[in-house]
Amino acid sequence: MARRVAIIGAGGYTGVELIRLLSLHPQVELTCLTSLEDVGTPVSRVFPSLPRKLSLCLEALDVEKVIAAADIIFTALPHKAAMGVVPHFLAAGKKVIDLSADFRLKDVDVYEKWYQRHTCPELVAEAAYGLPELYREKIRGARLTANPGCYPTSAILALAPLLRHDLIDLRTLIIDSKSGATGAGRSVRLGSLFCEVNEGFKAYGVGTHRHTPEIEQILGDLAATPVIVNFTPHLLPISRGILSTSYAQMKKVLEGKELAELFSDFYRDEPFVRVCAAGELPNVAMVKGSNYCDIGVVSDCRTGRVIVLSAIDNLVKGASGQAIQNMNIMEGFDEGLGLEVVPLFP
Amino acid sequence: MARRVAIIGAGGYTGVELIRLLSLHPQVELTCLTSLEDVGTPVSRVFPSLPRKLSLCLEALDVEKVIAAADIIFTALPHKAAMGVVPHFLAAGKKVIDLSADFRLKDVDVYEKWYQRHTCPELVAEAAYGLPELYREKIRGARLTANPGCYPTSAILALAPLLRHDLIDLRTLIIDSKSGATGAGRSVRLGSLFCEVNEGFKAYGVGTHRHTPEIEQILGDLAATPVIVNFTPHLLPISRGILSTSYAQMKKVLEGKELAELFSDFYRDEPFVRVCAAGELPNVAMVKGSNYCDIGVVSDCRTGRVIVLSAIDNLVKGASGQAIQNMNIMEGFDEGLGLEVVPLFP
Amino acid sequence: MARRVAIIGAGGYTGVELIRLLSLHPQVELTCLTSLEDVGTPVSRVFPSLPRKLSLCLEALDVEKVIAAADIIFTALPHKAAMGVVPHFLAAGKKVIDLSADFRLKDVDVYEKWYQRHTCPELVAEAAYGLPELYREKIRGARLTANPGCYPTSAILALAPLLRHDLIDLRTLIIDSKSGATGAGRSVRLGSLFCEVNEGFKAYGVGTHRHTPEIEQILGDLAATPVIVNFTPHLLPISRGILSTSYAQMKKVLEGKELAELFSDFYRDEPFVRVCAAGELPNVAMVKGSNYCDIGVVSDCRTGRVIVLSAIDNLVKGASGQAIQNMNIMEGFDEGLGLEVVPLFP
Amino acid sequence: MARRVAIIGAGGYTGVELIRLLSLHPQVELTCLTSLEDVGTPVSRVFPSLPRKLSLCLEALDVEKVIAAADIIFTALPHKAAMGVVPHFLAAGKKVIDLSADFRLKDVDVYEKWYQRHTCPELVAEAAYGLPELYREKIRGARLTANPGCYPTSAILALAPLLRHDLIDLRTLIIDSKSGATGAGRSVRLGSLFCEVNEGFKAYGVGTHRHTPEIEQILGDLAATPVIVNFTPHLLPISRGILSTSYAQMKKVLEGKELAELFSDFYRDEPFVRVCAAGELPNVAMVKGSNYCDIGVVSDCRTGRVIVLSAIDNLVKGASGQAIQNMNIMEGFDEGLGLEVVPLFP
Repeated sequence: MARRVAIIGAGGYTGVELIRLLSLHPQVELTCLTSLEDVGTPVSRVFPSLPRKLSLCLEALDVEKVIAAADIIFTALPHKAAMGVVPHFLAAGKKVIDLSADFRLKDVDVYEKWYQRHTCPELVAEAAYGLPELYREKIRGARLTANPGCYPTSAILALAPLLRHDLIDLRTLIIDSKSGATGAGRSVRLGSLFCEVNEGFKAYGVGTHRHTPEIEQILGDLAATPVIVNFTPHLLPISRGILSTSYAQMKKVLEGKELAELFSDFYRDEPFVRVCAAGELPNVAMVKGSNYCDIGVVSDCRTGRVIVLSAIDNLVKGASGQAIQNMNIMEGFDEGLGLEVVPLFP
Repeated sequence: MARRVAIIGAGGYTGVELIRLLSLHPQVELTCLTSLEDVGTPVSRVFPSLPRKLSLCLEALDVEKVIAAADIIFTALPHKAAMGVVPHFLAAGKKVIDLSADFRLKDVDVYEKWYQRHTCPELVAEAAYGLPELYREKIRGARLTANPGCYPTSAILALAPLLRHDLIDLRTLIIDSKSGATGAGRSVRLGSLFCEVNEGFKAYGVGTHRHTPEIEQILGDLAATPVIVNFTPHLLPISRGILSTSYAQMKKVLEGKELAELFSDFYRDEPFVRVCAAGELPNVAMVKGSNYCDIGVVSDCRTGRVIVLSAIDNLVKGASGQAIQNMNIMEGFDEGLGLEVVPLFP
Repeated sequence: MARRVAIIGAGGYTGVELIRLLSLHPQVELTCLTSLEDVGTPVSRVFPSLPRKLSLCLEALDVEKVIAAADIIFTALPHKAAMGVVPHFLAAGKKVIDLSADFRLKDVDVYEKWYQRHTCPELVAEAAYGLPELYREKIRGARLTANPGCYPTSAILALAPLLRHDLIDLRTLIIDSKSGATGAGRSVRLGSLFCEVNEGFKAYGVGTHRHTPEIEQILGDLAATPVIVNFTPHLLPISRGILSTSYAQMKKVLEGKELAELFSDFYRDEPFVRVCAAGELPNVAMVKGSNYCDIGVVSDCRTGRVIVLSAIDNLVKGASGQAIQNMNIMEGFDEGLGLEVVPLFP
Repeated sequence: MARRVAIIGAGGYTGVELIRLLSLHPQVELTCLTSLEDVGTPVSRVFPSLPRKLSLCLEALDVEKVIAAADIIFTALPHKAAMGVVPHFLAAGKKVIDLSADFRLKDVDVYEKWYQRHTCPELVAEAAYGLPELYREKIRGARLTANPGCYPTSAILALAPLLRHDLIDLRTLIIDSKSGATGAGRSVRLGSLFCEVNEGFKAYGVGTHRHTPEIEQILGDLAATPVIVNFTPHLLPISRGILSTSYAQMKKVLEGKELAELFSDFYRDEPFVRVCAAGELPNVAMVKGSNYCDIGVVSDCRTGRVIVLSAIDNLVKGASGQAIQNMNIMEGFDEGLGLEVVPLFP
């Protein structure tokens, strides 16, 4: 029998992406969509891209109604708002995939330093970090999964094989990331206007972006020692896609071919990670609309550095697609169910 | 048992779009992909967007090999090249969906005036014009379907209800169309360079575009009298999408609401035509990647004109998606099989 | 001695464009910039594109201070706000170029039907309509010039030669226009977000756009009889540029070459109108950043229609550049002063 | 009296940009434009953006005719082609600004390793490296100036203050650069098609790009010791602009404010370098069409790294504008002549 699914925060870009993908998921029935805006309007009118057969209306968030309507709940809310509702859903026996930052950082002090006070630290310990390639078993048994940030997904998948194999000097990690404009969400701000973004390119939040501690936590996990990185996000004038260019000094210089094989081995059984052949590099255009993470790796023998390029669609593997992948794991479904979509190129 | 399918001309944008959609079609197995370029290369390397499990290589066109390998053949070739191979496929008992212009124009004189000499006029009479909304029965029995042009698809679907109901003065038809850059194909030309198209907008082929007689033929069919139109194509700096803005003088001025109802009735049972509510208008962004044609209709009482806006993805409903819709009809499959994809927005 | 110039509403896109152009104008000194937002901030910090030597800060609008500071005043305000301040500036003996709609429509009833109540109808009669190609003499003597709308500029320049020569059936006029996103201004709205505009294309305000009566007024002037048109604006996913495609039935069918000559003659002495050779068509990319209006004309002998394509940069010839051209005329400067800028391509 | 100027290779993007800027230069008369294509066609027809008054036609390259026609020659040719003609121009007593790579690398062995055999190594020693901010005096006396590459311009200006002040560990230099599509020139290639670039983003030539030794040469000059860097270029889906993000370990950690002051001091008298206030970052949109290089600097105290962001228009400060700046210096003109253009935003 199909699971009944609610999306809390269905009016944003990750919300509509969840709907796009879940509307074709064979084991799921969407039963409840909440939003701050457009309450009472059919979701297929708010987003005319969606099929008309999706007759659900957006509704105001009513925790009891959501609990009555759904078995599985995706919370696509800003941080802080998420931790206000997630405990109620869990208390009612629901499974929750939370797309906010509220349950990602295991060290509550770190969370409180980069965000604000945490109101349910006890759930932080329990939450699985929803990067299936690294934490699949933890996710399988979870009732709460903290879906990773978009930048962290791209950076961690790029670096995990190097850290697991202890190939790099951890003090030399630099992650230079570039994201499409959906990363800023659908809220109405001057800096998100078409004419402010189009034909432009800039960095922002250099040294201060909140995804930094999340990246460091997981890399630290992999390295079994604290890791500090430079993480520099940039804004690309495209709708979807993140490309991260990660640099590190190799402890022993490996050739590109060796590295490509090592990455291929590492991700051999992963349905959503595609390692490029040596000499080939990923392009965000080749993952658009899909749950893939494409990775290319280069060895620079002149400097002894490894450079890893990783491309994802920030709304899919960086958010909604990965959330569904997590749901599939939590529910015991085939992990790729509903995510078979082929990237849209061109 | 799955039908074996070949794509002739798989290296272009309509080719890769056929592959994207057919790779998920439950009744189809891709068995042969031909191309002039990249022969011998795995198609998933030529188009890294495609899943790796697509292990087929592009091969040079060998008619006998294609015949041996496939039951159904999509010919995505330039006009003239198409009529060179289609007769062989038909003679071997194959079903053919031809995406070129070679079998669209019923009047061979008209074809020869706008294109060049026709080498198999006998097949022209036989071919079904592959616009299911108007010619479904003809397509059902066809062994050769001439898949409509992208512009004609958008214009004809916009105007068919008006002509069927005899609501407009046929001498006043103007179709102002705007297409994304995939419409020019993947061939390498100065005018198709990023920096020549980006941040630009222009008309081209005004009064001379070869889709004009195709539009006129079908509108003439609907009106049961010859129709002459102004058709003006423009080049949009986007990858996918056609919006056609069509104008005609109404014989009797109807209100917007009446027109919207009339259009809704006309397309009531059509799975891929979505008529906007009165007061709403289509946007190519809302059909991207899908087989939908979204239509909005406006009545201008000041001038007595009706204005119809129609939006399609030129690579899907305007080419590869409609070709698959035609295959489904020809094969007796559910018409929407493999085409359930939800538009990618944003 | 340089004229002292104020810009009222300097924080929007037409404002910054006025500053860009006026900062290089040899007869002008910017002395006062007002804005609702960023008051107290140096304008070169609000718009880091501007040279640092522009040390002026944005200030709140104080009519007396503006009057004290400036000889010439550009009002780049929304309609209604403009008519609240313009009378004061005129009363103080200033010259005003108003970029709003408030003084464009000669018939106050028409204004009040399409906009709202007019509070200083007596100034409407006095204001010159600032399209130099048609009203240069009127502008020369004016103390108040109503700078034309962007769409009307593109449409009227396209059609003026045809109307002056009485070549077309006035009941058949259709103007299909496409504008870049700066046309919507810099105010913060969901529909103006990058991800809502990018890779999209749609019509809006079909049959109801407020530039319609303005176009009709001037075309009516040219024809010496009332004119009603269909005007359909569309939103292009580019920053700058309007292309208008205008259609009309010719009274007597002229060939393309004749039409091109007739247009060339009509605009022979105009510094900012460039008529394309027969067979060539304009592209908004070729006027970007400049005050040019490029015009191409096509005769379709099959339908007896003339199709005129006209391209402008909506922020320059469609707004700020034309405003400066008007100032130059009003002040007796060389008409092209400060407007010699060459379009930026690519 | 105006200098007579020729442009060799006027049919590309750097060529048309030279024409755009030189057509407004008060001390220059364009007398000769050569091209491989469109020979015999007026340049204002090849590039309809250019003013009609530019009546020059493109002509085939005839060294003697160029020598007869011009005093100053800009060679905008591919490398190798440049060194075939430059010696002839110099022998005839002309001044040459060469935009190719042929005279940039002082060590001919390095040139021959990254490019091909050099046919006039004696001129390499003589050529001035045309980065005025560092080599103004050398340029002043030069008859041959090697105009810097676009990427090197952005990277060197970003790093020069740090190297001059010996603030960084030279072994830790990483330059992550992103360029608009005009960087690939106007030649017709699959990878430059609109639909291949649009909505995409990727790295290319990682570890192998030919601008690497050029960057290393100048940084080595500044450091007075050999320097090896990681340089990673990426392709942005915009027409113009380079943003370079440069990383290095600080020898002693300075605060952002100190660094901003140090950069401001370093470039205090430079007309075309704008250092951002501490906390602000550059955007390529803010330099579009202008000769500015905007620089922002960030200190990351967590890692002890300095991150420098630098933005240029690759066709202006990265090519044609800088070439004109060099000409101005070589000729004793005011250095900013013809380069006063204000960036076009939006």
